[in-house]
Amino acid sequence: MNSLDQINKIQGESSKVIYERACDVITGGVSRNTIFRKPHPYYAASAKGSYITDIDGTEYIDFANNMGSLIHGHSHPAVVDEVIKQLQKGSAYTMGTEAEVAFAELLIDRAKGFEKIRFVNSGTEAVMAMIKASRAYTGKPKIAKAEGAYHGTYDYAEMSQITNPDNWGNLDKPNAIPLVQGTPQGVIDDVVIFPYNDIERTLNILDQSADQIACVLIDPVPHRIGLFPASNEFVEAIYDWTRKNNALLAFDEVISFRVNYAGAQAVYTVNPDLTSLGKIIGGGFPIGALTGKSEIMQVLDPREKVLRYPHSGTFSANPISTTAGRVAMELYDEEAVLSLNVLALKARHQVEEAIRIADVPVSITGAGSMFRMHFQANAPTTYREAYQTKEMKDLINELLDYLFLKEDILMINTCSCMLATTLTQKEVDRLSEALLNGFKLIKPKLDQLI
Amino acid sequence: MNSLDQINKIQGESSKVIYERACDVITGGVSRNTIFRKPHPYYAASAKGSYITDIDGTEYIDFANNMGSLIHGHSHPAVVDEVIKQLQKGSAYTMGTEAEVAFAELLIDRAKGFEKIRFVNSGTEAVMAMIKASRAYTGKPKIAKAEGAYHGTYDYAEMSQITNPDNWGNLDKPNAIPLVQGTPQGVIDDVVIFPYNDIERTLNILDQSADQIACVLIDPVPHRIGLFPASNEFVEAIYDWTRKNNALLAFDEVISFRVNYAGAQAVYTVNPDLTSLGKIIGGGFPIGALTGKSEIMQVLDPREKVLRYPHSGTFSANPISTTAGRVAMELYDEEAVLSLNVLALKARHQVEEAIRIADVPVSITGAGSMFRMHFQANAPTTYREAYQTKEMKDLINELLDYLFLKEDILMINTCSCMLATTLTQKEVDRLSEALLNGFKLIKPKLDQLI
Repeated sequence: MNSLDQINKIQGESSKVIYERACDVITGGVSRNTIFRKPHPYYAASAKGSYITDIDGTEYIDFANNMGSLIHGHSHPAVVDEVIKQLQKGSAYTMGTEAEVAFAELLIDRAKGFEKIRFVNSGTEAVMAMIKASRAYTGKPKIAKAEGAYHGTYDYAEMSQITNPDNWGNLDKPNAIPLVQGTPQGVIDDVVIFPYNDIERTLNILDQSADQIACVLIDPVPHRIGLFPASNEFVEAIYDWTRKNNALLAFDEVISFRVNYAGAQAVYTVNPDLTSLGKIIGGGFPIGALTGKSEIMQVLDPREKVLRYPHSGTFSANPISTTAGRVAMELYDEEAVLSLNVLALKARHQVEEAIRIADVPVSITGAGSMFRMHFQANAPTTYREAYQTKEMKDLINELLDYLFLKEDILMINTCSCMLATTLTQKEVDRLSEALLNGFKLIKPKLDQLI
Repeated sequence: MNSLDQINKIQGESSKVIYERACDVITGGVSRNTIFRKPHPYYAASAKGSYITDIDGTEYIDFANNMGSLIHGHSHPAVVDEVIKQLQKGSAYTMGTEAEVAFAELLIDRAKGFEKIRFVNSGTEAVMAMIKASRAYTGKPKIAKAEGAYHGTYDYAEMSQITNPDNWGNLDKPNAIPLVQGTPQGVIDDVVIFPYNDIERTLNILDQSADQIACVLIDPVPHRIGLFPASNEFVEAIYDWTRKNNALLAFDEVISFRVNYAGAQAVYTVNPDLTSLGKIIGGGFPIGALTGKSEIMQVLDPREKVLRYPHSGTFSANPISTTAGRVAMELYDEEAVLSLNVLALKARHQVEEAIRIADVPVSITGAGSMFRMHFQANAPTTYREAYQTKEMKDLINELLDYLFLKEDILMINTCSCMLATTLTQKEVDRLSEALLNGFKLIKPKLDQLI
């Protein structure tokens, strides 16, 4: 396509055509529901730093960064250079590579609880491996997880990811609701659901299955619950409970690892036994990792007389993902984390100002370089408070559509931003201006909603 | 490292040093047990076509191709070129790409049963998605799978992957044996195990859980069972059974898709309802896919009023994996498949000749561009026949070590070869010569074993 063609294109015109092709071959026309939007998703042609250009030539500022997985934005030159070097030497072998060892060394160094590590291909695989390792180590079958928390697509981890007032049940003992139809009863029976950050209720619930819980799974900054951190008291209380009950504290830091140099776990007075990683540690390539205490990770050791948890994977620890990841994580050093968090704080303050000026009942939650807007005056502190009605979701989509189509700004579909180090004050100013315009636009409907 | 250093290195010397580093940070020193070997794994420095060079400068002929995932060997120039172009434009976006649509169109075109497709990140994720889709579509909780078959690391798919005479039970109803310690009883109860290619027993077993089986999972050329194809009668019988019992026929073609242009399924008189893909379709990059009948795939459609199977994934359908995959699959056209299969057949004949000359009780099984050697005079036709005792395994490892260390040939640790289009008669000659030498070497022990 030459530049003249691009100028003549109407925004979305070519995306519509590609989507029609997609619907013939891909179920729903999308391989990931997160990129789905009505009447059709948009297709990216290229991206550099914090800017994505779609196939009609419209350029967007990217505050989504592939669901928070691109900590240095798109096609960072240092990552691209090293990946190209590795590409010329091969992308995967039936042998080890120094790349996986160097990357393992780097990650192990970052957090106190990371004594040993293993790489897999995605966050989903990382959480699945964490749960399987917990069962193998403790010999117990159940897991406990928070209502509303997203932990990838392993059935057990998916329980009660989406619940609503009609099915969530009593807060003293929330129902375990499967996400996928046909989920076996065995899965439903083996997942204990607790209300996030609610110490008393959670401990009561855990006590009821104390002898059967292998691990308590916690995302310390759960995006789908509402993107607010677990309190130290909550994490400490669960830690203490797991010590008393032969269970493990398992952190899902696939999303939240970006929050501090040593992950979101850095701020707590206790360390998790196991941690799953993904997203940003791949430098833009598919990856996942399970890390934690040596003694527990030992269940995976093929040198053991009885191998409790045999594990392999064709592309696990491939030198492309581990090279890209190493470069990205080297660049995401303590200073880079701090700068990005400062920029995010500034962005939050500017958005809060836009909320005040527009006089809309909107609040913000977040941690580190992530924040999320809620269509309610007081920031939610629980999943049930953060729960969005259909009307609220429709209005959020209206705001997101306005931002995308009229202001050329891409956000995550929960009305969240996950920042990249390539963003500057300039893009943050554009975000807050655009949000101010958007808030004003939806204010009449928003005021009615509340 | 300059070339002089390389010349001076002793084979394995640097690998030993890296493995020591690895053991400090990675459990067992390896992220994938398949690359583990005693006393230490070897580390690749670079690879081109069918040759891998380790970090001490020793060059090996590669008959393993990253566990059969590299159909065009290492760093194929057409794949590398297109991946570099895409890399400069970004590796993943919170938007769609034309790359995923073009690749979906190509794959859908290849086999009759492929009406719609969705991409995921690995073969493990593909099989997991296939099982979840089967449950969502049928509303039934159980799956049936063959004793000894490998289908990735999802608990249900992993049942009875490894069984032995002490635990496998009566062939009329093989025991369901979990692979990982701590596997929940619910998983064990929801997997029905049948003996591969045994029509009468399998139908009897399926009948006992007829109202509860969502899908019968079949790898048409199961590597770990023994790398022999499912008979047409067997596949037909299971197909008929699934028609009568509201169940799906689900093919795992993650490994076997290479066998024909349209996969191993091309030769059967019936088509599976769902197929999972992986390995070669990624062109050397992490990928998986679920494909099958539109009506069934519909459970994944986010446009449906009730979305039965919500599914996403941060790196699913990323433009690097789908671009590399498209290029690799374009090159693996009908002619390329045929040529490779002809070369593999020639290799098998030459290996058979080596077996005759060395006069060893060894047999070969296989299909298409894959074959596997068994330390028994008559080729096994069942998992239990192909079962290797510890003594047999030790001797296989001795042969593999000899091939690797003395003949510079890399094979898969089950004593299998999965060929790439970059191999020629020259490498096949080297393989059969090397095997002849190896067979002669182990003949005394092998004769004692039988």
